[in-house]
Amino acid sequence: MPRVSEAHLAARREQIIEAATRCFARNGFHQTSMQDVIREAGLSVGAFYRYFSSKDQLIRAIAEEKVGVIIATLDRLMRVEPVPPLRAVFAEILEQVDHNLGVDGPVRIAVQVWGEAAHDPTFAELIGGIYGRIRDAAVALAARVRDAGQLAPDADPAAIGAVVVGLIQGYVIQRVLTGRVDRDVYLAGIEGLTARP
Amino acid sequence: MPRVSEAHLAARREQIIEAATRCFARNGFHQTSMQDVIREAGLSVGAFYRYFSSKDQLIRAIAEEKVGVIIATLDRLMRVEPVPPLRAVFAEILEQVDHNLGVDGPVRIAVQVWGEAAHDPTFAELIGGIYGRIRDAAVALAARVRDAGQLAPDADPAAIGAVVVGLIQGYVIQRVLTGRVDRDVYLAGIEGLTARP
Repeated sequence: MPRVSEAHLAARREQIIEAATRCFARNGFHQTSMQDVIREAGLSVGAFYRYFSSKDQLIRAIAEEKVGVIIATLDRLMRVEPVPPLRAVFAEILEQVDHNLGVDGPVRIAVQVWGEAAHDPTFAELIGGIYGRIRDAAVALAARVRDAGQLAPDADPAAIGAVVVGLIQGYVIQRVLTGRVDRDVYLAGIEGLTARP
Repeated sequence: MPRVSEAHLAARREQIIEAATRCFARNGFHQTSMQDVIREAGLSVGAFYRYFSSKDQLIRAIAEEKVGVIIATLDRLMRVEPVPPLRAVFAEILEQVDHNLGVDGPVRIAVQVWGEAAHDPTFAELIGGIYGRIRDAAVALAARVRDAGQLAPDADPAAIGAVVVGLIQGYVIQRVLTGRVDRDVYLAGIEGLTARP
């Protein structure tokens, strides 16, 4: 019997993660069964269970993958020379949010995971870990922006980082739930709030 | 048969709303049955169903009540003379968030409703209406703060209002899901981000 290649395994896994993302985004976790995901992925039950054995595992895999993308963006912004203006940092991150906002998109899953984490300790632990990583990246970026003279010398990067993450979370909430905030309007609001009269 | 007074009806209704808030905050909507809420409220099934006939109705009632509190706070801030500094506005709102943050508290319910609204059109409509009212109040407040000279004369109140709401939503998410942001730190972050070097 030929051995299944690593690349094949990874592709199958990705196929399942994408199918699960579509199912959860459309119908929610609780209204989605493993059978729904298996059907959406177009796999046999046996093939499917070689990769994932529970909805929790699927949600973790989706979260890990998408968080990886966000961290990668922040890391890349960390290495841009010269230090980009803070407005450009926000513009780039909000653009990524919009890019992943579709009815089947991972940003909708994030908001669902937040909702679950409000009452489920397993999800809360997952979110705690994710938040820690994103906030660490935002704090490092805030320190760099401050050291480049864009913020007051005594500005606290830890505090700024939390607020930068908060601004993005607020944008996600408003975009996903109402669609009634425009990216340019939100960016203008950040500018307007941070510009002195 | 004596007529039941309005005050009695209102008190019973409030008793049910509080019981439902505790149940939903602890276990989530989907894992809470009407029977759970009836038991928590300590009422007979017949008495209960005179007030609410579905979980959706309960969620709407909880949302309406709590949104009323937020709108009332913003309205009150609108009438304070002289116009309070923006930092005082944030301090007061974030204090209210913390005050309603307990394991049984309504702020946890808000995050759950956001999660449901990400995939359920009924919830999305509810949230759309709520968001519209809160944002309108925030925009009016932003215009007043700008006119008092705290923001640039050409700052757009609509944009500022969206970002003010976003900052609060981000704080709610971080407090509920991780507990790892302190109110004073978040307020310092807003200050640090809005102060020019």
